[in-house]
Amino acid sequence: MRNELMQMLEEREDEMIEIRRYLHEHPELSFKEEKTAAYIADFYKGKDVDVETNVGNGHGIIVTIKGASPGKTIGLRADFDALPIKEEANVSFKSSNEGVMHACGHDAHTAYLLILADCLIQLKDKITGTIKVIHQHAEEQPPGGAKSIVDSGKLDDLEAIFGIHVLPMAQTGTVGYHSGYSFNGRTYFKLRIQASGGHGSSPHKANDAIVAGSYFVTTVQTVISRRVDPLAAGVVTVGSFDGKGSFNVIKDSIELEGDIRYSNDETQAVIDKEFHRLVNGLEELFGVTCELTYTPDYPTLYNDPELTAFVADVLKGVKDKDITEVKEFPRMAPSDDFAYYLEKIPGSYFFIGCTPKGVEEPYFNHHPKFDIDEDAILVAAKSVGHVACSYLAMDLDDKEA
Amino acid sequence: MRNELMQMLEEREDEMIEIRRYLHEHPELSFKEEKTAAYIADFYKGKDVDVETNVGNGHGIIVTIKGASPGKTIGLRADFDALPIKEEANVSFKSSNEGVMHACGHDAHTAYLLILADCLIQLKDKITGTIKVIHQHAEEQPPGGAKSIVDSGKLDDLEAIFGIHVLPMAQTGTVGYHSGYSFNGRTYFKLRIQASGGHGSSPHKANDAIVAGSYFVTTVQTVISRRVDPLAAGVVTVGSFDGKGSFNVIKDSIELEGDIRYSNDETQAVIDKEFHRLVNGLEELFGVTCELTYTPDYPTLYNDPELTAFVADVLKGVKDKDITEVKEFPRMAPSDDFAYYLEKIPGSYFFIGCTPKGVEEPYFNHHPKFDIDEDAILVAAKSVGHVACSYLAMDLDDKEA
Amino acid sequence: MRNELMQMLEEREDEMIEIRRYLHEHPELSFKEEKTAAYIADFYKGKDVDVETNVGNGHGIIVTIKGASPGKTIGLRADFDALPIKEEANVSFKSSNEGVMHACGHDAHTAYLLILADCLIQLKDKITGTIKVIHQHAEEQPPGGAKSIVDSGKLDDLEAIFGIHVLPMAQTGTVGYHSGYSFNGRTYFKLRIQASGGHGSSPHKANDAIVAGSYFVTTVQTVISRRVDPLAAGVVTVGSFDGKGSFNVIKDSIELEGDIRYSNDETQAVIDKEFHRLVNGLEELFGVTCELTYTPDYPTLYNDPELTAFVADVLKGVKDKDITEVKEFPRMAPSDDFAYYLEKIPGSYFFIGCTPKGVEEPYFNHHPKFDIDEDAILVAAKSVGHVACSYLAMDLDDKEA
Amino acid sequence: MRNELMQMLEEREDEMIEIRRYLHEHPELSFKEEKTAAYIADFYKGKDVDVETNVGNGHGIIVTIKGASPGKTIGLRADFDALPIKEEANVSFKSSNEGVMHACGHDAHTAYLLILADCLIQLKDKITGTIKVIHQHAEEQPPGGAKSIVDSGKLDDLEAIFGIHVLPMAQTGTVGYHSGYSFNGRTYFKLRIQASGGHGSSPHKANDAIVAGSYFVTTVQTVISRRVDPLAAGVVTVGSFDGKGSFNVIKDSIELEGDIRYSNDETQAVIDKEFHRLVNGLEELFGVTCELTYTPDYPTLYNDPELTAFVADVLKGVKDKDITEVKEFPRMAPSDDFAYYLEKIPGSYFFIGCTPKGVEEPYFNHHPKFDIDEDAILVAAKSVGHVACSYLAMDLDDKEA
Repeated sequence: MRNELMQMLEEREDEMIEIRRYLHEHPELSFKEEKTAAYIADFYKGKDVDVETNVGNGHGIIVTIKGASPGKTIGLRADFDALPIKEEANVSFKSSNEGVMHACGHDAHTAYLLILADCLIQLKDKITGTIKVIHQHAEEQPPGGAKSIVDSGKLDDLEAIFGIHVLPMAQTGTVGYHSGYSFNGRTYFKLRIQASGGHGSSPHKANDAIVAGSYFVTTVQTVISRRVDPLAAGVVTVGSFDGKGSFNVIKDSIELEGDIRYSNDETQAVIDKEFHRLVNGLEELFGVTCELTYTPDYPTLYNDPELTAFVADVLKGVKDKDITEVKEFPRMAPSDDFAYYLEKIPGSYFFIGCTPKGVEEPYFNHHPKFDIDEDAILVAAKSVGHVACSYLAMDLDDKEA
Repeated sequence: MRNELMQMLEEREDEMIEIRRYLHEHPELSFKEEKTAAYIADFYKGKDVDVETNVGNGHGIIVTIKGASPGKTIGLRADFDALPIKEEANVSFKSSNEGVMHACGHDAHTAYLLILADCLIQLKDKITGTIKVIHQHAEEQPPGGAKSIVDSGKLDDLEAIFGIHVLPMAQTGTVGYHSGYSFNGRTYFKLRIQASGGHGSSPHKANDAIVAGSYFVTTVQTVISRRVDPLAAGVVTVGSFDGKGSFNVIKDSIELEGDIRYSNDETQAVIDKEFHRLVNGLEELFGVTCELTYTPDYPTLYNDPELTAFVADVLKGVKDKDITEVKEFPRMAPSDDFAYYLEKIPGSYFFIGCTPKGVEEPYFNHHPKFDIDEDAILVAAKSVGHVACSYLAMDLDDKEA
Repeated sequence: MRNELMQMLEEREDEMIEIRRYLHEHPELSFKEEKTAAYIADFYKGKDVDVETNVGNGHGIIVTIKGASPGKTIGLRADFDALPIKEEANVSFKSSNEGVMHACGHDAHTAYLLILADCLIQLKDKITGTIKVIHQHAEEQPPGGAKSIVDSGKLDDLEAIFGIHVLPMAQTGTVGYHSGYSFNGRTYFKLRIQASGGHGSSPHKANDAIVAGSYFVTTVQTVISRRVDPLAAGVVTVGSFDGKGSFNVIKDSIELEGDIRYSNDETQAVIDKEFHRLVNGLEELFGVTCELTYTPDYPTLYNDPELTAFVADVLKGVKDKDITEVKEFPRMAPSDDFAYYLEKIPGSYFFIGCTPKGVEEPYFNHHPKFDIDEDAILVAAKSVGHVACSYLAMDLDDKEA
Repeated sequence: MRNELMQMLEEREDEMIEIRRYLHEHPELSFKEEKTAAYIADFYKGKDVDVETNVGNGHGIIVTIKGASPGKTIGLRADFDALPIKEEANVSFKSSNEGVMHACGHDAHTAYLLILADCLIQLKDKITGTIKVIHQHAEEQPPGGAKSIVDSGKLDDLEAIFGIHVLPMAQTGTVGYHSGYSFNGRTYFKLRIQASGGHGSSPHKANDAIVAGSYFVTTVQTVISRRVDPLAAGVVTVGSFDGKGSFNVIKDSIELEGDIRYSNDETQAVIDKEFHRLVNGLEELFGVTCELTYTPDYPTLYNDPELTAFVADVLKGVKDKDITEVKEFPRMAPSDDFAYYLEKIPGSYFFIGCTPKGVEEPYFNHHPKFDIDEDAILVAAKSVGHVACSYLAMDLDDKEA
């Protein structure tokens, strides 16, 4: 079956590119992907599969491909939302939705998975087991779509889940994997510090919120520099210090907003504890009142070591002309709500290199000039196809071998 | 002459109050006091004095009253501008210029001085020496009117200058004096810190302006706590920390604005030097670029000790039923551009108590509910009248006694 | 009587100098002034006065001189202890007690008061009222001698108390006075911060006491810069940061020691409150345990305004050839336990200029090269003599006039 | 040959343990390992190999084992110095050199390598290539012995180098490997801050070194929190803040000492640059003079990815009953001067588990109760033996395969 699948994919490469371009031209923001979802649902119309739409807290779609013989059940996920970015990439299929852009490659993700799914549907008779194709909405915007899809219970029967992300930093043909903690988790915070205002000449009659806020910023540095394991990754960024006021009036309140990142659960726990401690301490220290909003967004993404080794071994072994290199990648600083699937289901989220041809320093994901080499879409389809074939074909008893 | 003057002032008390109420009802902002200036000029119309209008950088007026016999030349100053404050005082002659209010008592200052001037004009024949009455515009708004009037050269012949400020914190009948440094000087600053932005998850690729700004705020505290003589007064208030941004983007630049106060020239010099040092240090410390606007406004106000003792002695000695107490007041935290006259001309700026009747906790100057006891206007007129009489009558050779 | 007293003092100037030199050569530390006290007691031996020794918590001596006629009771105080300083002054009567020195002029204080007391004893028949001469031990070393003498109840009958301090910064012949708060109060603190140690490479397994201590030092600056009235004086000096350790071991505890100064009771209260708040906040902020010793030493010294005006008026009025100038002095930064007398008894503590002859920049009190112009001893005796005469002679009913 | 070698090693296990115990009982400090070096040299006496002693800056020994056929040249290194720690381990062969202890397992390192070397000498005829056995002195004390041995040029012909470290945290039988940066690099610093002292009550006349030092400590946190790549590891520990002084005297100078760690060269470069920038900035900021000693000790240890993969593959493949598990280990926080070899020669430094039997929470290296399971010595010998056999037998042309 594997060879047949690969051949089918190769033959349908143009179609993948076409779909990607269509989606690229018609991007929609997270939770607002109505037309994109309709487009996807439409794609499956008339095909012999079970399609559930509006899954989870938005436009999620699950397509269940039941193989002829009973076997394992796996999930393959691609996200389909876009970003609030004004496109500056020089492409003919530029975003027609001004201010919205597929600047993270979800168009390519969806394109490969649609065609891969279609091929698998056609090969149903030869499939042992079940494949759930997850077209996920709203990856870019917490709370994201993934958690709600997991919470729907519709994936409870999955034994493994796989997904990929395109990365222009790596060459087309390169597939990257990382075992264990692979993407950082993230928490949003807003800290309002209420002190009391007064005349600039009389600080003793006021309580200066800007001073309290500034000491908070200097103190919070120690959470990273002294509390987090140096071998783990932690970041506390105060992205906003809203303390604009009149030069000669002591500010009565300010508002900080920021972004916290962590590479593993232990680090998250440490930062949580220390951050709250600092806020409490600040209240006592300066006699201010703090109002803290502290919202964990996406958790750390933990790739199952066994399944990651499995992915690496499979792809190293397949001798596919389009997969030229399979290697370990470093941990990634960003966050991805694929993490929610992996909290419940063992799996692996891996990387597909896609440096645009002739480009030496490609733009990173989320850049207004972000672009990909479309040859990478076939690499994605084949890589995931290989992994699915191998996993479903694998004798469960041999799994540990 | 003194008794005659005092009797005239007592007789014209109602008129003073009337003028004050008229001005109160028609307040004008600094540098925009067209109608007020016209009202004042009009008051002198037909009187036998020299009136110069549009003196200095605005609507300043100097009225020169030449006595019959030659003698010393003194200046008496009252300011006449109002504040951008929406009046909340419960008076029948409330501001008719919405959002503008005589919340600092300049209406009373002008009222007493107009009548005092008129009486002195009538007594010209008995006066030895010359009195320059200075109706000053724009005290509330740096650069103020005083400096430009001094710079006009029209006061170069003054041997002494006197002025008063009404203070609701002291009872009507009380006159206060303070020798030496009496009002703080003030400097405005704006500090723009330019760093470089980046993604919240990757601080190492950016240079965080909020962090640099916060450390600046914590460090600038030491200017006051460790550099300024504890027996002097110094204040550095950062009134504005404009660093609003997106929670997950590292801020590339911020802007601080603030207010610096100092009680004497040495303290001003120390703060100047240390503040600039900190800004330079910050650039090196965090690798940021700082753009500093540092604008001294009004200098410290230094009451000539000899003339202040003279004022105190005169007023303690006069046995005037309306001046019930003459005592030393503490230094004042605010600033006043009377300081500019005193940089060039020896003089004394003193205080007229005016707690509104029946009020236990009067509102301070600049409060929307600021009010005065109008009986204090006569006290002001008499006090300044006494001082002028004594000074002009004083044998120059005895001055040192 | 006044003239007689002054003549007697002038005649005994050499004796005063002799006593001063003897004491200078034989200095004793606070609470250890056995021989000095014996020397003083010995001086009064055989004289017709009541002498109490060992008053208070040390070697204090009170000599009660009862005038022939009943009247008011006043106290005159001079301190007699020396300092743990190795003398470097170039005088022939250098300290023979190595490492101990009369570097604050208490030798001169005692010398003038002994002779003044002796003269007053001789003039007893002409005195209306009672004079208590207080030879006080242990001014230099908290808790000092003054408080215990006050607590002894032996001064409960005083209506006023006077004392002087010699100051080399002012010329001989100059007498200085300051009304109201005149010397700062002082508090000692020791702050032990207990965190937990660890290996330098693993901060997350430890809790760094040096970091906590450093943030405390930066934060404590705000007590002075933002909490204390700029017109008052406050100082928090961390004089010792004992955190010596091994470069690659995270320090588990540190100890700070310091000195707090304040110019008035309100400022003391503010610093007390804020300092304790910061310590509590620090515990929460960094999860450390703080052990705080916080010991107020001498309070602020408050010169009664009425009696200070009285002193100024008396000395300005006496036309004494040795008192060439009487003027207001600024507040003093140091502390003096004369403050304890003034908490209970109205009085005034004033200054006697004593710049050594031919010296342009005299050494300040407590300097190893501290020296005085011995002519100032007579000025001290006369000044206090004048004040005593005037006060005792004053008709009580006129006191308020 | 491999089987023969393994059998020989198994037979000589008791001897390894005996040597280890002898060394454990006779530990010597870095650079003072005279007797240990003599013991080692003695071991080779009469054997058919070239032995060079006193190599490098101390007691280093290189033993060159030339195989019968020409081939590749590799190095095997074991260190032999002990630590200044008072032993508290409960063993019969406790240190007889009070205060000195083999608390890092260098005794075991030397024991296995002596026997492995002896076996290889006996198998010389069957060896293709050359093995240089490096008995290294002074690993524990920078500048260490490794750098000087590398600088001696005696290893210039090595194509690869291998070494191991025993780790009680892992079970006996487990071998750990880590590719790329594996041990942190380390820099020592001493920062003397010279300000100027003064009286505690007069901060404006002094320049407070404790304040400057404290702000430095708070500011240096940002090097780690904001400048270092979160995915890399960096530590700046200020282990000593020597600012002990008198509570009421402003400190004129302080001295900080500390320890800097970094996981890769880029991080080292960033910290170097930022640390120096902060020191320069501090001078400007507070007007102090800084004297900085900044001494990089051991560099980061970089395991060649290819050779590390080779080690992992070889050991996973050998099916040796004593090597029960071969797995990736995390990066290590400490530093090791094996890093110097790896700067010049590709190689891999890997880990030998040695949890003492029956112990749940073993003591870490450098603990006074540090102990190992002596069965691990054979595991070390066999592991290094396997790697050497495979490497020397490997066809160079196949290396990349």
